[in-house]
Formats: sequence, structure tokens, C-alpha cells
Amino acid sequence: MTTPPASTPTYHDDAVFAAHRGGKMEIAATVALHDAHDLATVYTPGVARVCTAIAQNPDLAHDYTWASKAVAVLTDGSAVLGLGDIGPRASLPVMEGKALLYKKFAGIDAVPLALDCADVDDIVETIVRLAPSFGGVNLEDIAAPRCFEIERKLTERLDIPVFHDDQHGTAIVTLAALRNAARLTGRPLGELRTVISGAGAAGIAIADMLRGAGVGDLVLADRKGVLHTGRTDLTPSKRRIAQHTNTAGLTGSLEDALAGADVFIGVSGGTVSERAVAPMGKGCFIFAMANPTPEIHPDTARKYAAVVATGRSDFPHQINNVLAFPGIFAGALHAWARKITPRMKAAAAEALADVVADELRYDQIIPSPFDERVAPSIAEAVAAAARAEGVTGEQARSC
Amino acid sequence: MTTPPASTPTYHDDAVFAAHRGGKMEIAATVALHDAHDLATVYTPGVARVCTAIAQNPDLAHDYTWASKAVAVLTDGSAVLGLGDIGPRASLPVMEGKALLYKKFAGIDAVPLALDCADVDDIVETIVRLAPSFGGVNLEDIAAPRCFEIERKLTERLDIPVFHDDQHGTAIVTLAALRNAARLTGRPLGELRTVISGAGAAGIAIADMLRGAGVGDLVLADRKGVLHTGRTDLTPSKRRIAQHTNTAGLTGSLEDALAGADVFIGVSGGTVSERAVAPMGKGCFIFAMANPTPEIHPDTARKYAAVVATGRSDFPHQINNVLAFPGIFAGALHAWARKITPRMKAAAAEALADVVADELRYDQIIPSPFDERVAPSIAEAVAAAARAEGVTGEQARSC
Repeated sequence: MTTPPASTPTYHDDAVFAAHRGGKMEIAATVALHDAHDLATVYTPGVARVCTAIAQNPDLAHDYTWASKAVAVLTDGSAVLGLGDIGPRASLPVMEGKALLYKKFAGIDAVPLALDCADVDDIVETIVRLAPSFGGVNLEDIAAPRCFEIERKLTERLDIPVFHDDQHGTAIVTLAALRNAARLTGRPLGELRTVISGAGAAGIAIADMLRGAGVGDLVLADRKGVLHTGRTDLTPSKRRIAQHTNTAGLTGSLEDALAGADVFIGVSGGTVSERAVAPMGKGCFIFAMANPTPEIHPDTARKYAAVVATGRSDFPHQINNVLAFPGIFAGALHAWARKITPRMKAAAAEALADVVADELRYDQIIPSPFDERVAPSIAEAVAAAARAEGVTGEQARSC
Repeated sequence: MTTPPASTPTYHDDAVFAAHRGGKMEIAATVALHDAHDLATVYTPGVARVCTAIAQNPDLAHDYTWASKAVAVLTDGSAVLGLGDIGPRASLPVMEGKALLYKKFAGIDAVPLALDCADVDDIVETIVRLAPSFGGVNLEDIAAPRCFEIERKLTERLDIPVFHDDQHGTAIVTLAALRNAARLTGRPLGELRTVISGAGAAGIAIADMLRGAGVGDLVLADRKGVLHTGRTDLTPSKRRIAQHTNTAGLTGSLEDALAGADVFIGVSGGTVSERAVAPMGKGCFIFAMANPTPEIHPDTARKYAAVVATGRSDFPHQINNVLAFPGIFAGALHAWARKITPRMKAAAAEALADVVADELRYDQIIPSPFDERVAPSIAEAVAAAARAEGVTGEQARSC
């Protein structure tokens, strides 16, 4: 045994590290396994009959394996929280945490998978090969722009739901919060001039979702300033969203765009100064959602905004994806949905907002993640939307 | 809803199918998740500190994620039990069952993964990409000869243990049973003329293992008869084993080879007639291990053999891999072994035999799978062998 170098930190007395020691999850049996009879039932020779039945009718895998309730929480470690490309191994604690949340809030069995692999087609092929083992795929913390292409290709090739949570989960919860902030303050959604800081996966998905919900005056900004069609440095995904937003043709910096704006949505991982938000419109909303450090401290934001939210669980008003993904997959898996459509996402946002629609306060525009109404409400709305759209496998079942 | 066709079986009243309904396993949290404080500890923002620490020192993933105790139970569904190539989806009940056994007997968290993929290099690449998420890989029910190449390539490329259980697990338990049958009957292992029916993954691995243990007179047979160097129809793996066995230069059928033999080991998936085993040597051993149907019924075999065993849990004397793999991975993971070497496998076989060495009876040459001494004994022996061979990561740990 070697003595650790003096500079090596010891984590034994740290509560966060103590909670992570040995990992945060385990496998548990849901069947008895006490004696030879049990062994012959759940393993050989009994199991052979179940295998044979599934070989004859593959749909039976849905009923007689855990795959239909198992979701892969899958990353390449390229955009983990606000920490950037820290690689697959270092991303595992987030994937495990997410798996816990699936279980806690929706009873879904999620498996953390961190891929040592960065190429789009390699990631796609790997997931396609893994697909028989899962009922759905939660893509997580994959950098833009590769996340767009990976999700698009997987959605084409697989008949199980694929959902890049950093895009759509964030967008769904943001729209729900914005809906309720608008309700609370009596302002029509369509009249809110909105500025999104960050034009990566989350920023673009939020912009798409808000446009779908009728937010007309929408501007995105990246590190180089406002996205407009005159810029020659835009990636294809930024170019596309620039063509569909910023109808006023704004140019300049994020700060320029914020002057007089009604809504600030931060998904940048950067910061925004007090001086930048001070000139926002009266009664504005500030959603500073960067993790782990919000773009602006909520105490500062509250000096200027009617409604302030962050992405953190240790500040009030958490706009966190955990409000969406458990219910979304619960609904999709329950309806045996083959994909998660824009209509299902919109239904999820509406259902989430509606949970507290009659209890709105300036410190409650969205429910707590621990509100037990959330996941069932979303699941029901998502399953209903899937059925209405005809993307479920339920009708085709032969048993 | 459509009415199922009259020919569709209903499984509701079947105990085996009832046990499989909804799958046999689930994910469980090992940490508290009751309130916002817990959420901030096991998820954001707390988790970001653990990620950052692992990014700086990748070895910390061993202590602060579940990966170091998680084993992928991975198949392509190409050789499932004795059922053949039934595909990934139909193989899932076996993989789940195996995962349960890992948990039950060694506390290991195993994840069933069935790959939709048949090419050797595709399978290898997929597993290499998945490796950061796991502490070890149990290859399962993959057809020969591709299983040999997959295991060889993975062992070269990965620094976590890779173990094709159909080969080595079977071989380890078979050797343990043979050791004790020889002990019980007072016959030296080296003098037992042994015939193995089946020259696939299991048969060849058993032959290698028995050779290593000193069984000199060893013959394998496949569907076309005894393996000898004069045959021109052998695959490379059969050719190799033919060169190292059958020193007497036997030709002809399995039945020819059985005349006067001391040991029959069946891993063929086929059958062997009473007429074929009747001329075996007095006091012979018959291990008819095909699953789900033994090559010969144990009641028939007992008419000719001193010791009879099968691979099934519902007959006495089960030569089943479950006696080996939980302890082997427990030992390998505990010692942080980078691979599972022949010496570690030999140590496992010896430890398994030794559990009941002082309690041998004609109906007990190996312990019951539910004997609680088994996995710890094997784990200790495997970890000690790994340390003795210097293939562990423990010494290199920096914390």
C-alpha cells in the first residue's frame, strides 16, 4: 500500500461524497429466490419456456421481461451539467442520480450507461444495438450539435421512445413555468418579449417549444451575442433557429437584447450581471437556470423581477427537469409509445403547469419535485396525447 | 382492441409465466431521497463536485459510482440455453435470471444487456464503448466460435474482467464435481478416461480446464463423431483442441469412445442412448449437463454410473454455473482484478470442490447453489490468486 500524496483530498468527512460512496443504486429482485423450486422457476429450466414463447411472439418481451419498464440513461460525457466534456467515467454520478429520480418519481427502472465514444454514428449504432434491452432511451448531457443528430437518427431507427432530456425536459419545464408566471401576473404568453441566453441544446429546444406555445417575440444569444440571420459564424442548428426567431432583427450583445425584455431565460452556463438585468421591463421574469451556478444570484435577480427561478434544488422555485422526465417516460412506456412527439411534449408542459394552476403564488409557479401529483398528471397527459396521435403499440398487441 | 386468435396461448395461469410477468428485477436506491436536501446531495448541485473529483482522478469512479460493483450480463442471443439462436429479445429472461443470481449469491448488481448485433467486431466495439459503466463483463449465451474471438479481443482491450460464463463457469463447476467424484471413489483424476460430448464453447473450455488439472486421457466428440487430427472438417478451435486431446488417436462415433470410458460429460444439447452408456467402465461418472433436457435421464444413467449429475436445478446434484460465477466476480471485483486468469479459474474450481470435501456422499459431490459458503469461499480464492498473479488494481490506488 502506498501513502497518498499530501495533496490528495480525503473525502471521508464530506456528506456529499459519503452519500456517493459505493454508488447510489442497486439491483433488486422482484421475485422469490429461496430454494431450488424458485431457481427452476426464474432460471433454468423454467425460463426456457418464457424464452421460447418470446422467440415465437416477440411482443411477449413487453410483458415478461423488465425491458419494457427499463430506460437507458445514456451519455457520452461530453456536456455534463455545466462542467463540459468531462468524459464518460466522471459523468456516471449524474447518470446514477438521474436513474434514482426515475425510480423515485415514476417507478421506472433506469440504467446509467456512459459511453466511451464521441462519433455520432458510433453512438447511434451502439444505442441501436442496445435497444432490445430497453423500453426507452433518455439521452443525457451530450454536447450540441451532435445531440441533435443522434436524437434524430435514433428516432428514425428505433421503435422505442428516445428523448434528449437536456433539450426537451428543460424546454417542457421552462414552458410550464412561463405559462404559470404569465397566468399569475395576468400577462398573455404571446406578448412576452423573451431573451434566451445560450443557444446550445437547451436554448434551441426552449425556443422551439416557446414558439410552438405562441411566444412570438423571441431572441437567443450565444457567447458572441444575439443570433440573427446576418451572422456568418452560426452552426446549422443556430442558423435554423435564427431564421425562426428575432423577427425584429436585433443585433448586438445579450445585454442589448435584455433592455426592456419581459423574460430572461438563462441556459448558458455563463453569468449575467446585475447591470444587464436592471433595464429589463417592469414585472419581468428571470429564470437563471445554469447548473451548478445560476447566471445571476436569485437575491440579486429578485430586486428587478416579479418572478425568479433557478435550476437548483437548494433555492426556491426550481425549474428542474426532474419535474418532467419521470412522468413523460411513465406515460410513454404505459402507452407503449414508439416515440415522443412535439404534441406529447406540449401536453406534458400543460399538465405540469396545471398541477398548481389554482395555487399560484409569487413563490410557487411550478410544483415542488416532491409534489406527488406531478408525475401521474404528466404521464396521463402524455399517454393520452400518444394515443390521440396513434403512435402507441397498445392496439397491435396480440395478448 | 383485437381479440387474440384462438391459437394464442394464454399464460395467466402458468406459475413460470406469472413469475416473469413485468420482469424479475428492478432498480433500488441505496441513498435517501426524501426532500430537497437529499436531492441537492445525490443530484444537482452536490453531484457536480463528485463528477469534478472523478474527472481529476478517474480512479475515484471505483469508490463513488456503482460501476465498480456492476457487471454487464451481455449476450447477442445466438446460443441461448439449449435453444439456439433465438435472438436478443427472447434471451432477456435468461439474462435477467442471471442478474438475479448475481445479486442473490454475491450481492453484485448485474445488468441484462441483449445486443441486436451478430458481427464479432461490432460486438467487441459495443462492449468497449460500454466499459466505463461497468466493473466487469459476463458474456453469456454467445455462439461458438465467435464467443472465443470476442472474449480474446475484449480481454486484450479492457482493463476490467471479461468472462464467458458458458465456457469457463461450466468448466470450473465441472472440474470441481469431477475432483470430488474422484475423491469420493478414491480414483486419481489423472487416470480417468474422459469423453466430452459437445465441442462447442463449453466442451472445449472443459477440455482445457481438465487438461490443466491433469486429466490426461481426454476425448471430445461433436455431431460428426470423435475429434481427431485426421478430420478435415474441424473449425480452428476444434482443430486446436483435437491436437491437445485424444492422444490414443481414436476415431469413430461418440458411442465408440464411450465403451470403457470412466467419465461422460455431456454439453452437447443432444441426447445419448442407454445403449451407449451401458458399456462404460464400472463405477463410471455421468454428467449429463444439457439444458433444459439432459442428454440421458438421470434415472437411466444411475443404472450404470456411480455418480450422476445434470445441469438442472430440479434434479439432485446440479452442475450449474451458478455455483461459480457469483463468487468469481465477487473475488475479481473485490481485488479490482483487471482480468480473470487461468490460475484464478483453477483456484475457483478448487475452492468450490473444497466446500464439501469433508462431506462427500454419492448424492453430494458439489454443494447446493444455496450453500452460503460457496460464493465467499470462491471469492476469497479468486482474489488471492489475482493478488498472487499481480493482476489487481488495488496496489495502484491513490486513495
